[in-house]
Amino acid sequence: MSKTRKNAAILAIGDELLSGRTRDMNIHYIAGWLADRGIKTGEARIVADESQAIASALNELRTGFDYVFTSGGIGPTHDDITASAIAEAFGVGCPISEEAKALLQEWYQTRGEELTEGRLRMARIPEGAILIKNTVSGAPGFQIENVFVLAGVPAIMQSMLEDVDYRLDHGRADHVVTIMGKGLESQLAEGLRAIEQALYGVKIGSYPGKTGKGHNLSIVVKSLDKALAEQAAEAVAALFRSLGSEPEVIEGTKRPDEGGQKG
Amino acid sequence: MSKTRKNAAILAIGDELLSGRTRDMNIHYIAGWLADRGIKTGEARIVADESQAIASALNELRTGFDYVFTSGGIGPTHDDITASAIAEAFGVGCPISEEAKALLQEWYQTRGEELTEGRLRMARIPEGAILIKNTVSGAPGFQIENVFVLAGVPAIMQSMLEDVDYRLDHGRADHVVTIMGKGLESQLAEGLRAIEQALYGVKIGSYPGKTGKGHNLSIVVKSLDKALAEQAAEAVAALFRSLGSEPEVIEGTKRPDEGGQKG
Repeated sequence: MSKTRKNAAILAIGDELLSGRTRDMNIHYIAGWLADRGIKTGEARIVADESQAIASALNELRTGFDYVFTSGGIGPTHDDITASAIAEAFGVGCPISEEAKALLQEWYQTRGEELTEGRLRMARIPEGAILIKNTVSGAPGFQIENVFVLAGVPAIMQSMLEDVDYRLDHGRADHVVTIMGKGLESQLAEGLRAIEQALYGVKIGSYPGKTGKGHNLSIVVKSLDKALAEQAAEAVAALFRSLGSEPEVIEGTKRPDEGGQKG
Repeated sequence: MSKTRKNAAILAIGDELLSGRTRDMNIHYIAGWLADRGIKTGEARIVADESQAIASALNELRTGFDYVFTSGGIGPTHDDITASAIAEAFGVGCPISEEAKALLQEWYQTRGEELTEGRLRMARIPEGAILIKNTVSGAPGFQIENVFVLAGVPAIMQSMLEDVDYRLDHGRADHVVTIMGKGLESQLAEGLRAIEQALYGVKIGSYPGKTGKGHNLSIVVKSLDKALAEQAAEAVAALFRSLGSEPEVIEGTKRPDEGGQKG
């Protein structure tokens, strides 16, 4: 655990995510996973399966953030071009890795299947990268410097994070309190601003959207300092009570699924 | 309708989208809505509620794409800073707009509610912008040059798109055919590559993931030329049949919800 918290960017790769066909699942998952480890996601991007777009986004993100996580485009078909695009971004080659090839050979042999030419594509790894284990379908991801290249299929991507966890410098996670009540954002606006200004080190977000128990507004209070977060949460709860609504307060980083996108 | 297809970028704004709290809904919706209008989404980004991050992403995107759509951060609370960040990006002021103020006054008056100070914040509109109608909750979005600034709450954002539609230069939409069958990506990889190379103007994507009828792989074929798309779809169907799987073929831009993120 380091004193300064690391930050991260996420780069989801895939035409299907920009055509309206598929709704990305991975940005949300990775961001939550990182938050639990005290690592803050500063930005996420979605780009198409185009070498130039991938390489240029990657080069911006890897110099701007401590870590970059990519998802997608490392499968066996012709439209899987992430590995070579990333090699291009780093200015290195992308040959068949003997280590990855051996790994795939063993994986398929054990299952009585063949290492076809398409599958062998998945052993192409940028020079200097180290592998990331895939316990779901064999073909590895890889890490090159501060960039972690993961699969796009959510279950596979999630299994790869297990082999990434110990490579990261965890930070202190925010203490999070969610206060849900009934009221209009505009009725709480002045009070929330006053609370945030009074308590340095507290960040407050306001999210309209139905929650359980007939509440329609979630206020999320965050601070590295637990006492400060609780003090802010108390003040927010008092605001709701002044509007005649008895709020529900949830401590901890478990994030409610309800409560929508804001503003 | 123009001869050259316009492209677009989407910028979703909100801390909640990067903390793992809320899964963005808007990128997927806007991208599909644009695809139906023959406008291709080239990139999407998610940034936090930070002026600098919003302004710098916006300035990159608005010069790189024909249209930019932002969502989020135009509500009444202290963390809604999108309007002023966008004014900053354009180097203009962000005063109370008399037109927006009048609109809000009428909206709340009709409902017997008050135009509070928080609500008045929602009348702050960058100089030179024109308003975008919000039929759900009154407070308008705005357009400034090629940038469309929409709410983050999905229902409100979607209502605003209705008032944006006629301002856009529609293109011809791709003809899309989805072929679903049973097989491994690696078994089809070579065949798909050959089809894409043989039929210029066809783009093929391969997406593993369970679909109905026991199929596990969706191949999506796209082309501006309907005949070409159908020819490619026939060839893909034949590939599936050669593997002993009778494929299901869906024509048109209706996108199946199943079938996941790839590679």
